[in-house]
Amino acid sequence: MSAQAPSARTRVRTKPDRARYERDIQYAILDEALLCHIAFAVDGQPYAIPTTYGRIGDQLYVHGASASRLLRTLAGGVPVCVTVTLLDGLVLARSARMHSMNYRSVVILGTATAVIDRAERLTALRAVIEHAVPGRWREIRPPTDRELNETAIVRVPLDEASAKVRHGPALDLQADLTQPCWAGVVPLALTAQPLIPDARLADGIRVPDEIAHYTRP
Amino acid sequence: MSAQAPSARTRVRTKPDRARYERDIQYAILDEALLCHIAFAVDGQPYAIPTTYGRIGDQLYVHGASASRLLRTLAGGVPVCVTVTLLDGLVLARSARMHSMNYRSVVILGTATAVIDRAERLTALRAVIEHAVPGRWREIRPPTDRELNETAIVRVPLDEASAKVRHGPALDLQADLTQPCWAGVVPLALTAQPLIPDARLADGIRVPDEIAHYTRP
Repeated sequence: MSAQAPSARTRVRTKPDRARYERDIQYAILDEALLCHIAFAVDGQPYAIPTTYGRIGDQLYVHGASASRLLRTLAGGVPVCVTVTLLDGLVLARSARMHSMNYRSVVILGTATAVIDRAERLTALRAVIEHAVPGRWREIRPPTDRELNETAIVRVPLDEASAKVRHGPALDLQADLTQPCWAGVVPLALTAQPLIPDARLADGIRVPDEIAHYTRP
Repeated sequence: MSAQAPSARTRVRTKPDRARYERDIQYAILDEALLCHIAFAVDGQPYAIPTTYGRIGDQLYVHGASASRLLRTLAGGVPVCVTVTLLDGLVLARSARMHSMNYRSVVILGTATAVIDRAERLTALRAVIEHAVPGRWREIRPPTDRELNETAIVRVPLDEASAKVRHGPALDLQADLTQPCWAGVVPLALTAQPLIPDARLADGIRVPDEIAHYTRP
């Protein structure tokens, strides 16, 4: 996919060498992460709320309880910022100044719009669940009309976005190499721990491979 | 520590059974996580930016390049929201509706204030580095005055905060227990992977235990 020209608002100004405007890089980050933080303002006070999401093409979908402040505010068509961050490691340098983190993040600016159409609502919910566990949708009971009505869904276009990536070693000054301390990177990854099967699991139900060996793409 | 009465803005209204107003619960989440997302608005457009932080008592400290939009905006004394989220697991239910995440999050509302005093600036930087790797500060070269001047630091009080915690199994309806799919929790944890020592590491430098066996508190 081609690079997306940054807007005046998404151009990375601090450490511009970390900026990534290619959509495929941005979408790979969005597809790997599980959580976003969605920011909006109410009476001048910003809020940043963590939530799950799904992506379909150039649209991001966020869902939640229809009655929640988050979804009621978002459905009103307000400006939002959706930020997704993957923490890849601690960069331990020999000086305080050069300590850093390896990370990949995407910042999306846009306006959230309520999704009304029933077919799009179902497709969006499916995308949210498949985002976390590919293949899960065909296994589970789909939402009833009542459940669907209790769920608010908003769409945020991915037209105005930028990614920022820091990777690699500590960038110590030559003069600091004599500092007698360990330096290097502590890589970090979100990893699945041993499964906790539901207490009410029926006999003979097996764990699908994609859950037994859960990893992110 | 005692519970903090929620303000009208931090009272959790959606799923209030998940709310935690005790400071010790909130601070344990802040002390375990490595990243926050800090939200602020510029000309009505919210931004949520990932960054590291440190905590000293009832204050949170965030640092960054003095020239960055983030720090210049924050130092102006604007309303912010600092959100910290730990993702603990995927909750895989038998119905789409009951899919969820186990998580612990803290939402802090307040006004960021630039830290000017040199002693407080040094203490704050130390807190940020010790937050990621306890014991690291005494090993490394402290910042020079010039480095300190290139770094902006802001303080956000922890007076107006709420935590939200979801844990435990899927809450399937009795009628869904016959759905022939696996259900349960996929626990998730941010874990350290094999260290990447710096290419310029001098002979005889050993890895401290707290880095060799890196875990979060």
